[in-house]
Amino acid sequence: MFYHDGKLQYTVRVDKPNPQFAKLLQQAIGGIEGEMRVCLQYLFQAWNSRGPQKYRDMLLETGTEEIAHIEMLATAVCLNLEGSSSALKDEMAMSNPMVEAVMGGRDPRHILSAGLGAMAADANGVPFNGSWVVSSGNIAADMHANVMAETTGRVLATRLYEMTDDSGMKDMLAFLIARDTMHQNQWMAVLEELGPDAYPVPNSFPSSLQHENVAYSFLSTSVNEVSNATGRWTEGSSIDGKGIFRFEKAVPTGGLPVLAPADKEIHGQIEQGVAPDPGFIDKVKDIIGG
Amino acid sequence: MFYHDGKLQYTVRVDKPNPQFAKLLQQAIGGIEGEMRVCLQYLFQAWNSRGPQKYRDMLLETGTEEIAHIEMLATAVCLNLEGSSSALKDEMAMSNPMVEAVMGGRDPRHILSAGLGAMAADANGVPFNGSWVVSSGNIAADMHANVMAETTGRVLATRLYEMTDDSGMKDMLAFLIARDTMHQNQWMAVLEELGPDAYPVPNSFPSSLQHENVAYSFLSTSVNEVSNATGRWTEGSSIDGKGIFRFEKAVPTGGLPVLAPADKEIHGQIEQGVAPDPGFIDKVKDIIGG
Amino acid sequence: MFYHDGKLQYTVRVDKPNPQFAKLLQQAIGGIEGEMRVCLQYLFQAWNSRGPQKYRDMLLETGTEEIAHIEMLATAVCLNLEGSSSALKDEMAMSNPMVEAVMGGRDPRHILSAGLGAMAADANGVPFNGSWVVSSGNIAADMHANVMAETTGRVLATRLYEMTDDSGMKDMLAFLIARDTMHQNQWMAVLEELGPDAYPVPNSFPSSLQHENVAYSFLSTSVNEVSNATGRWTEGSSIDGKGIFRFEKAVPTGGLPVLAPADKEIHGQIEQGVAPDPGFIDKVKDIIGG
Amino acid sequence: MFYHDGKLQYTVRVDKPNPQFAKLLQQAIGGIEGEMRVCLQYLFQAWNSRGPQKYRDMLLETGTEEIAHIEMLATAVCLNLEGSSSALKDEMAMSNPMVEAVMGGRDPRHILSAGLGAMAADANGVPFNGSWVVSSGNIAADMHANVMAETTGRVLATRLYEMTDDSGMKDMLAFLIARDTMHQNQWMAVLEELGPDAYPVPNSFPSSLQHENVAYSFLSTSVNEVSNATGRWTEGSSIDGKGIFRFEKAVPTGGLPVLAPADKEIHGQIEQGVAPDPGFIDKVKDIIGG
Amino acid sequence: MFYHDGKLQYTVRVDKPNPQFAKLLQQAIGGIEGEMRVCLQYLFQAWNSRGPQKYRDMLLETGTEEIAHIEMLATAVCLNLEGSSSALKDEMAMSNPMVEAVMGGRDPRHILSAGLGAMAADANGVPFNGSWVVSSGNIAADMHANVMAETTGRVLATRLYEMTDDSGMKDMLAFLIARDTMHQNQWMAVLEELGPDAYPVPNSFPSSLQHENVAYSFLSTSVNEVSNATGRWTEGSSIDGKGIFRFEKAVPTGGLPVLAPADKEIHGQIEQGVAPDPGFIDKVKDIIGG
Amino acid sequence: MFYHDGKLQYTVRVDKPNPQFAKLLQQAIGGIEGEMRVCLQYLFQAWNSRGPQKYRDMLLETGTEEIAHIEMLATAVCLNLEGSSSALKDEMAMSNPMVEAVMGGRDPRHILSAGLGAMAADANGVPFNGSWVVSSGNIAADMHANVMAETTGRVLATRLYEMTDDSGMKDMLAFLIARDTMHQNQWMAVLEELGPDAYPVPNSFPSSLQHENVAYSFLSTSVNEVSNATGRWTEGSSIDGKGIFRFEKAVPTGGLPVLAPADKEIHGQIEQGVAPDPGFIDKVKDIIGG
Repeated sequence: MFYHDGKLQYTVRVDKPNPQFAKLLQQAIGGIEGEMRVCLQYLFQAWNSRGPQKYRDMLLETGTEEIAHIEMLATAVCLNLEGSSSALKDEMAMSNPMVEAVMGGRDPRHILSAGLGAMAADANGVPFNGSWVVSSGNIAADMHANVMAETTGRVLATRLYEMTDDSGMKDMLAFLIARDTMHQNQWMAVLEELGPDAYPVPNSFPSSLQHENVAYSFLSTSVNEVSNATGRWTEGSSIDGKGIFRFEKAVPTGGLPVLAPADKEIHGQIEQGVAPDPGFIDKVKDIIGG
Repeated sequence: MFYHDGKLQYTVRVDKPNPQFAKLLQQAIGGIEGEMRVCLQYLFQAWNSRGPQKYRDMLLETGTEEIAHIEMLATAVCLNLEGSSSALKDEMAMSNPMVEAVMGGRDPRHILSAGLGAMAADANGVPFNGSWVVSSGNIAADMHANVMAETTGRVLATRLYEMTDDSGMKDMLAFLIARDTMHQNQWMAVLEELGPDAYPVPNSFPSSLQHENVAYSFLSTSVNEVSNATGRWTEGSSIDGKGIFRFEKAVPTGGLPVLAPADKEIHGQIEQGVAPDPGFIDKVKDIIGG
Repeated sequence: MFYHDGKLQYTVRVDKPNPQFAKLLQQAIGGIEGEMRVCLQYLFQAWNSRGPQKYRDMLLETGTEEIAHIEMLATAVCLNLEGSSSALKDEMAMSNPMVEAVMGGRDPRHILSAGLGAMAADANGVPFNGSWVVSSGNIAADMHANVMAETTGRVLATRLYEMTDDSGMKDMLAFLIARDTMHQNQWMAVLEELGPDAYPVPNSFPSSLQHENVAYSFLSTSVNEVSNATGRWTEGSSIDGKGIFRFEKAVPTGGLPVLAPADKEIHGQIEQGVAPDPGFIDKVKDIIGG
Repeated sequence: MFYHDGKLQYTVRVDKPNPQFAKLLQQAIGGIEGEMRVCLQYLFQAWNSRGPQKYRDMLLETGTEEIAHIEMLATAVCLNLEGSSSALKDEMAMSNPMVEAVMGGRDPRHILSAGLGAMAADANGVPFNGSWVVSSGNIAADMHANVMAETTGRVLATRLYEMTDDSGMKDMLAFLIARDTMHQNQWMAVLEELGPDAYPVPNSFPSSLQHENVAYSFLSTSVNEVSNATGRWTEGSSIDGKGIFRFEKAVPTGGLPVLAPADKEIHGQIEQGVAPDPGFIDKVKDIIGG
Repeated sequence: MFYHDGKLQYTVRVDKPNPQFAKLLQQAIGGIEGEMRVCLQYLFQAWNSRGPQKYRDMLLETGTEEIAHIEMLATAVCLNLEGSSSALKDEMAMSNPMVEAVMGGRDPRHILSAGLGAMAADANGVPFNGSWVVSSGNIAADMHANVMAETTGRVLATRLYEMTDDSGMKDMLAFLIARDTMHQNQWMAVLEELGPDAYPVPNSFPSSLQHENVAYSFLSTSVNEVSNATGRWTEGSSIDGKGIFRFEKAVPTGGLPVLAPADKEIHGQIEQGVAPDPGFIDKVKDIIGG
Repeated sequence: MFYHDGKLQYTVRVDKPNPQFAKLLQQAIGGIEGEMRVCLQYLFQAWNSRGPQKYRDMLLETGTEEIAHIEMLATAVCLNLEGSSSALKDEMAMSNPMVEAVMGGRDPRHILSAGLGAMAADANGVPFNGSWVVSSGNIAADMHANVMAETTGRVLATRLYEMTDDSGMKDMLAFLIARDTMHQNQWMAVLEELGPDAYPVPNSFPSSLQHENVAYSFLSTSVNEVSNATGRWTEGSSIDGKGIFRFEKAVPTGGLPVLAPADKEIHGQIEQGVAPDPGFIDKVKDIIGG
């Protein structure tokens, strides 16, 4: 169960409302790098958690914290929108086309749909999408999904930090950026705890069942003789310690694919032939030259 | 520029067509863990690459390989669907409800829309979504997105491996599982090359600007006195080596949020008040008790 | 800020795991009638709330409760999936096509993507969509959105109740159905408090500005002489008490729409003409006969 | 069957084309509050209607009227776009960055994809989504969905009214706002006709089967002692007249959720354990400490 | 404006309700090949029509007819679902897993969300998407979009025809298939009327501005010496009569792409360098080796 | 399998970076008319190809070429974004609201999410959608889908050409416009090869099974006596040569649809009645008046 106290985790202050910045902040709410994603991702991972209890508990702790981050950002959007519709109206009514342009950097739905409130959408107004919530049932894969979410999330937050000179907004973002630092470290700490034997993920699939001969080969698909794509990944021991990196030219070993004609019920064109009616095939053989 | 030879990277053989398995394979094509995502992700990262040339080259090498993986899986879907529509017709026409059920495990659009072919969709027929293609402009974040894609991708492939007894399909999947092993290692090798100073990502944002006091604190949101969520992430040096993990109870420091009434143009209800028209507020004060 | 205790609001018990029912339960998690929608809707309405403080507080209370409902349903999905993948494997491997069909009623992504866990998606695997989260900035419109969510939500829950004979699941659903009863009443109580002057929503738009002559007319678009569509809405005082219902045949008063040819830069076909270049129009006049 | 006469239901006049306003109007066409949603919603409810014939007839009458509303708005978009691409070209070519900004408030796809026409999308260019079309099979739930659609729809229309000074556009919107007034009343009239016994929706589910002890309790999830969230909904008779409102602190009665380890086929990490293979569990017990 | 008479354009009769077939029919309602798409596409093309009036009139005629087709198919879905929920309940309650599978071929939302009604979604429950509604502002491109919609639509209808033995359903589909025949011919008739000078579309872009040297060349991207991809399109006069088809090996003439380092505000990794701050670049030169 | 050489098919040169134009270019990458769609469409059609081999080969040739077009456009987006974030920061920080507006025409995610790179999205930031990838299994329908894609694609490219005065961008677009010319011709060449007997598509469905009496009738749904919608499509031989065009007034022959009450488990309102429980119906007869 969940509880609340109505207070903000950290101060949200806007010195000068800026509807354009409100739009940018939406990316941190409902964008793929945003707080709705990490919040729901950690909560679903907790609820679906099978295995050591401490991971479930930890995910629940942090998933709950992230609700407060959405709350802070939603409040920041609201404060940045205050007074903005009156200004917009005046601008829209002016005859000067330059003035009319002011609404450009805004999300019009902040006025039309949300009445000066935050939305479950990204900086372009594209709605939050549940497919971004990754809970795979494999804890190592989940932790990598979480590190990924926090790295792209912190990159987003630092970009937002650069896009504003509002000291209140900078202060709030500096708080969120610090939390992203912790969360990056937190999920990496789980990976450290799982240890090097976690790889390749999943570690419960016997390596002997995979095609070992291509499990540590960098396959070059370049038509050029010499590749510039060499590095740590083309020589030395593999990162998982279970193989030796190799550089190879990719070659096709699978031959040309051959598909049968489609069943009659599919209603391709006659020229495509049909299966498995040999009579029909005889009839159209001349046409399709097959 | 890109080239092709029409051949498969590895053999695709289906001993016994199985339209249900064709549906499952769609997840590996157009699902979030699938090959379309990694293919486009690596190619966009290559095309957008700013920085050391070898990373662009490597991304292009592997992004190109992934096109061949989509090709293999699409071929596998086609082969698994052969002869399946005739059977379906017979089943649909039978009076036995059990028999009618056979179509249950299928994707009906494999027949209705694709005519026994593969689609750019997942195992539930949900279309591939471009939002899954992550290219952040930060190479460390991108590499984490790639490791994540390959761990969830390999988990998916091993589950598909378990879901079939077709030796041809198992053989193809064993090949793809091996390639996922390499690709996990490959992106981790870049991270190793970038070194421990890569964290927190982005490493170009001065740490002094973030709220250092919460940058390495595990904040517990539990109402319980004692937490079970302790571990590597609550004590010792942080993974990025730049702080010491701490355990703290989360407390709100931001106070209650206060929003102004909305502008008149927003047309909330009268009872909500309006801004910035003080006359209007006076008029409705009794009603809203504010 | 938000807190948790890791416990379930009400018991979640599954006597006999049923992966088909797990799929149905997803509609109550990530479907448009589901708990993710109401949870986020109430929280966003709270965070965006401008006006009397008690409404913000109430929305926050109930929005927080709904997180616990998602938690219960996610747990129910997990419990219904236990042991189901082993069975599926056996079934898939059997030669009897009837047996292979068993997987039909399942969401394959419960295995492939979530590893026997719940997802942020509906009963067809379609991801949760942020556009469903309605927070309009008008409290009466918001309350109607909430009543609607709780009526469709309770209808869904009663249908799920009918679809299972598992006593644990029936017990959990009976709890959720009761909460939906309360929440329907709760939002209607706000509407009662706002009173009859709340309509038409928004009540802050002066009625004199609308076309009063069609504000209370039922317009019949039927080509038939006599309409069967009469009722309370075609006679008597209007529900908002501000007009008299009338029945009228709809008639077009707007004439035929006339659009100018498109600008030259749009590159329609020559036959469509262009604006505002009269020379070009002269040249193609014979062709388009305009 | 359906018929048309090619005329507009009401005059659509644009005194001064404004591509920015064309973008805003898209919300009223293809947005969640827009006319496509209500049109399709009423038509699907009519086509799916089971029960008294007059409701089907009424829904068909009004669903058909709404097609004419989309027609009016599409025409308004077209008229607002006339001459706008030529201007845009000039602006794009100018070196002054201020001038380049003019295109900001436009939907670029009005030019690129629609050639100065309307689209089935919202004000941000997000496509219309069929999930918004609610037809639940329960007439009370459907009517509430319709009231909700007309309240958010009228709020949207009044905001658009504020955003323009074009007298033609104001006149058209004043017509649509009046129709929204009627339609709000119309659906509420059905609810009045259904009477107070319609609640809780669905009224066909025996109340005795729900957990009556929580069916009329406002559950407070606040960690604070005293709640500010009291009101009509915490005391007195419930709105449906079937209970007494109570205020209670929410408490968890469901205990901690316990999930079994996942099946082996799911390929979690070894550290997560597997079910139902006891041998495997024994083998990894030391590692996972479970 | 639009009108209706409540009657079906053609008889909809279901001899034996079949919920599985109801699911398949959804593709013809809300799928990309379905009637919602063509209906809205023709109506939007009519409303956006600039140019000869007769095309607007014709699009309006046929767009209006298509509403009646959605109506027929929605009715067919409803009739196929009658009595199906009772059966489902019984099946779900049985202990035999084979029996439980019966629900496999159904769309569960037909029960859970629509209460035995049709939905604005495809055969997998994926919602109708407004992006499918093509209205380009170029009449030749629009007509090609329409021919495409009617060819894929008729292919879909014939596949549905094969999937049922219900004589009522076959009769209804035979009617719709005939209408698709007419509509294919109808849009091709417009293209015939526009004549051969319509190509390449748009014909209002001066051909001299395109790179004529590659305007009629089939570029082979195969790494193989000899191509099997020759045909009508590699020799002879081009179809538009304005060039001669050629076969050429594709060669890259654009050189290697070179991107500058990203701006500092973007916060890539230090190793990626930044622009345009040369001092920063000096500082990290050793690291990135650039 | 696929290969690459890292070079661009044609020069991509940007004389003056323009982030607004970068946004417009996104439509040609990830929009429905864009290169991702045609690329994936041709590749999937090739991989799914059943029938004459040469069509598979040709589709593979051109699908591979289209990857290079995405590459060119992604490079163009990157080059147009260079240096743009620094400028944006300065603009955002300025107090002049006119200046703040500059960001209007940009896609904010080009900075926030992609770090000055291209995305798999359209000009409004709406993600690429896999549903646009049409591969029907019928070669004639596929070819019409391809002609449609290339006509709308070329229209888009010519509009982009008009929107820029950058000579590098014009040169690149002139190359792509020429390739669209070839591809339009190429798919029409296949249709020419298939010959007039390809229609109506699919030609494998016996025409005798469709309702021939309405297969060549233009059905007028206008309530007006005289139609202006006559033309080539209302008289003379049909385009497929298999019928004679007729003009007819549309009339409903299907009568009024009659649906049974819903099953009890569906939980409509009592007033809607239920099936198949006659006792229940008796009980509520008075209420519903049925």
